[in-house]
Amino acid sequence: MPVMATELRRQLASLVVVRGSGHGSDGQRRYPRWELSNEQLRELLAQGVGGVILLGGSAAELRLRTEQLQRWAGGPLLLCADVEEGVGQRFEGASWLVPPLSLGRLHRSEPERAEALAERYGHCTGRQARLLGLNWVLGPVCDVNNNPANPVINVRAWGENPETAGSLAAAFVRGCQAEGVLACAKHFPGHGDTSSDSHLELPLLAHSRARLESVELPPFRAAIAAGVASVMTAHLQLPALDSQHPATLSPAVLTQLLRRDLGFSGLVVTDALVMEAISAHHGAAEAAVLAFAAGADLILMPADAEAAIDGLLEALETGRLSHARVAESLERRSRALANCTPSSEVPASSPLDDLEQLVSPDEQGLCRELLTLTLVSPAAPAALAAGPGVNLIRLDTQLQAPQLPAMAPALLRPAALGYAATVIDGRSPSPWSGKPEAPLAVERLASGPVLLQLFVRGNPFRGSAGGDEPWPAVIRQLLALQRLAGLAVYGNPYLWEQLQPLLPADLPAAYSPGQMPQAQAVLLEQLGLKAAALEGGFTD
Amino acid sequence: MPVMATELRRQLASLVVVRGSGHGSDGQRRYPRWELSNEQLRELLAQGVGGVILLGGSAAELRLRTEQLQRWAGGPLLLCADVEEGVGQRFEGASWLVPPLSLGRLHRSEPERAEALAERYGHCTGRQARLLGLNWVLGPVCDVNNNPANPVINVRAWGENPETAGSLAAAFVRGCQAEGVLACAKHFPGHGDTSSDSHLELPLLAHSRARLESVELPPFRAAIAAGVASVMTAHLQLPALDSQHPATLSPAVLTQLLRRDLGFSGLVVTDALVMEAISAHHGAAEAAVLAFAAGADLILMPADAEAAIDGLLEALETGRLSHARVAESLERRSRALANCTPSSEVPASSPLDDLEQLVSPDEQGLCRELLTLTLVSPAAPAALAAGPGVNLIRLDTQLQAPQLPAMAPALLRPAALGYAATVIDGRSPSPWSGKPEAPLAVERLASGPVLLQLFVRGNPFRGSAGGDEPWPAVIRQLLALQRLAGLAVYGNPYLWEQLQPLLPADLPAAYSPGQMPQAQAVLLEQLGLKAAALEGGFTD
Repeated sequence: MPVMATELRRQLASLVVVRGSGHGSDGQRRYPRWELSNEQLRELLAQGVGGVILLGGSAAELRLRTEQLQRWAGGPLLLCADVEEGVGQRFEGASWLVPPLSLGRLHRSEPERAEALAERYGHCTGRQARLLGLNWVLGPVCDVNNNPANPVINVRAWGENPETAGSLAAAFVRGCQAEGVLACAKHFPGHGDTSSDSHLELPLLAHSRARLESVELPPFRAAIAAGVASVMTAHLQLPALDSQHPATLSPAVLTQLLRRDLGFSGLVVTDALVMEAISAHHGAAEAAVLAFAAGADLILMPADAEAAIDGLLEALETGRLSHARVAESLERRSRALANCTPSSEVPASSPLDDLEQLVSPDEQGLCRELLTLTLVSPAAPAALAAGPGVNLIRLDTQLQAPQLPAMAPALLRPAALGYAATVIDGRSPSPWSGKPEAPLAVERLASGPVLLQLFVRGNPFRGSAGGDEPWPAVIRQLLALQRLAGLAVYGNPYLWEQLQPLLPADLPAAYSPGQMPQAQAVLLEQLGLKAAALEGGFTD
Repeated sequence: MPVMATELRRQLASLVVVRGSGHGSDGQRRYPRWELSNEQLRELLAQGVGGVILLGGSAAELRLRTEQLQRWAGGPLLLCADVEEGVGQRFEGASWLVPPLSLGRLHRSEPERAEALAERYGHCTGRQARLLGLNWVLGPVCDVNNNPANPVINVRAWGENPETAGSLAAAFVRGCQAEGVLACAKHFPGHGDTSSDSHLELPLLAHSRARLESVELPPFRAAIAAGVASVMTAHLQLPALDSQHPATLSPAVLTQLLRRDLGFSGLVVTDALVMEAISAHHGAAEAAVLAFAAGADLILMPADAEAAIDGLLEALETGRLSHARVAESLERRSRALANCTPSSEVPASSPLDDLEQLVSPDEQGLCRELLTLTLVSPAAPAALAAGPGVNLIRLDTQLQAPQLPAMAPALLRPAALGYAATVIDGRSPSPWSGKPEAPLAVERLASGPVLLQLFVRGNPFRGSAGGDEPWPAVIRQLLALQRLAGLAVYGNPYLWEQLQPLLPADLPAAYSPGQMPQAQAVLLEQLGLKAAALEGGFTD
């Protein structure tokens, strides 16, 4: 390749963000199909690839990993992660905060307090990201969760109405970016009112432009007004704006709506191009070219990074993409990087000592305050009666469930009262009887009162918001049998709102938006269950 | 305290080994009751505590952790871990090898090959331990597993007869110590013929001295002849040798038998004093004093380290322990440390780059060779028929099961053939019908053929070797229903030997002593199941 083309290829490569594991060795990758090997990463970074999205690994491993990737790259990298609920959501050892939607709920009664907390939430996330070598947080979610059945946004959103979502997302942006870490408003132009998951298929949003203006767009306008550095596109079909392309590949959405109408001058990044909604319809090269032509500056996780770069190069050579268009994106990337505060110079000989300061006392306080404020329970709920009984826990999946380490309060505290755990998830032998009025096959459980602990929330790739099992009927069934000892709901507020009215006033019951061990501790404390001797697994 | 007493206390403290987490932050400790906090560790190391046993964390985290602990300590530390099955058994990213007993089986037909492999096993474990900053491997298990119901030794042993156990354990010692890492023969004088777990209670071994000479002691003699640097005591009652004290606290066992009769001059370390077998009967100080008086040099995991050190100091002052006795132990500790090769000087700025060499090509080959050699299956088993069907997996516990990451071959490969996973463990809703002849409640499973995958082995704290469920009857039941599609047993050879004779010759079936993802890949390959697209989670 001539020198000019080589340099041009490097420049185009800098606009590509690939995925790597936060763990150090290839064998530790959880998803080798998506997480590049060290050899691939080294090769692509040598070619000039400009960003890496990281998943997996503890805080200490991530610190080592970001140092290593920066070393492998010639120039400054964009290093990002989907840490929408605190850095500890993905990297153990950092703060794991309650999902944003819980602050949206608080905003109904105490808007100023909720905004102040959202700003601290942003500070906490940004500061810890920076200490671990990340300079780009892929949040806040600016989607309005006005569809409780949304399987993929759900509690990740900051609000159920445009005003709340906008004011809290903007507060998060201010906090995060004040720490010298870029934030990212997503998923433009709004993924809240969908009931399918773009990880699995291409959802359709059949709203008019006027409706988008009134519901979907205000939170993005608020984030932009707060100076958000980047916006991530949604893989959504929006026939009112573009009859042909999904938002990610649509000039009408990215250039006309986002750049011109909303006046956004920062970085536009696609959501992962490897997702089915895109990859089922376009090859890696074509998807990349369409995204740039539509107005994107960065492409995230192309199905094949080299093919995407080569595709962009060819599009420049054939005139499908203009040099001016690429120059704009390069300029925006440089400007964004200039706004990042470098991770403090850590004496490399003692990263663990340094990370002892990772979670500040203020951040520990924030984590506890959020848990306490967002706990929902009767004023003075009855204490759980002593067992022997059944501690029936429902999880999405037990395998590698970070919320349920062996020493989790949800296991140990009921055990100390005599409740033996039965755990069900999507791979359990069926717990169902087949009878609509009495759906739980109680004869397969041990005898005695049942403490029901439901860990239910929407998560990507699950295809459902988790509220589709017959829990209301189970509550009625256990009440009729006089076997319902207590109820704990962790995560989805909509499920709690469905179940709570069915409960007698004196039944020990509570809801926490958080699912992490510390949320369990706060909730169970409310039901009179004190800390168990062996308890562990807190990551505050 | 006068200066002399202070110095004496430091010396006594150097003979205590406490437990820490391999993770960096206190919040990441899995077992906070046993794993000291960073503040406690710093304080105890400042007082001169001389060793730490580590559990948990990835290889990279452990590397940082051992550096940190050495920095916190004034002098050289003994840093150890229970890595009996390769360092990757406990620290992800290092080699996770098949359990030793599988080589004991190979030894029947190919003794020389088995010994050569055991020596490479020792090299692999020692080398990787050293690279991660450990200088002491708490293996080999020298117990003779002549009781298949042993809940705690089981496949951790190197043999089912004294000769095999001795020759393979000695080979492991040679390999490990050639890497400059101390080995440890355990659990003296032999824990193989027990059917209860000393983690939970004090087992009794009612054998005569003559029987001990013929069965239990030979592997220890072999390890001692191979120059093993340390021996760990068992929490066992041996009325033939000592009517009063368990082995750990018995002068007859440690001084008379081990030192005098067997001529062992290395380090004697107790098993964890916090275990119920000891702690239920003695306070921390008294247990430490009794262990030293009996002949131990190092005490492991006292229930309270400061109380243990103070107890030893008081015993010296009152004359219960002699200064000469303590001087001997100090001398042995110094001698052992002098035999350790320090971890190579790693450029601290790039520990991850350095750890890319953690698993050498030879070690990768060893791991694969062991898996292939120890796989048991008919010469040319039939390939598993296509589903739809049920992939029924039985695990000890699904929570944080390292053998079953989300992308494990045992899940993905059958899924690609149409087998949907149902996973049962000790916390599942009961899969049992209550009918002895047809114990599996098949009506609670999906329809179609059943691939049965049993992950069963003895593990500490489980109270059983895992073979006590009615799997033979399940095999007969599924055969009668013409629903048995295949059988995979991972771990316990005794269960396989019980089930294999019940199978038709053409049924796809195999046994691997390993449970890790790579073992699943090797076994399922044998049943015609090729690698699945998303597969991951190998740590070779």
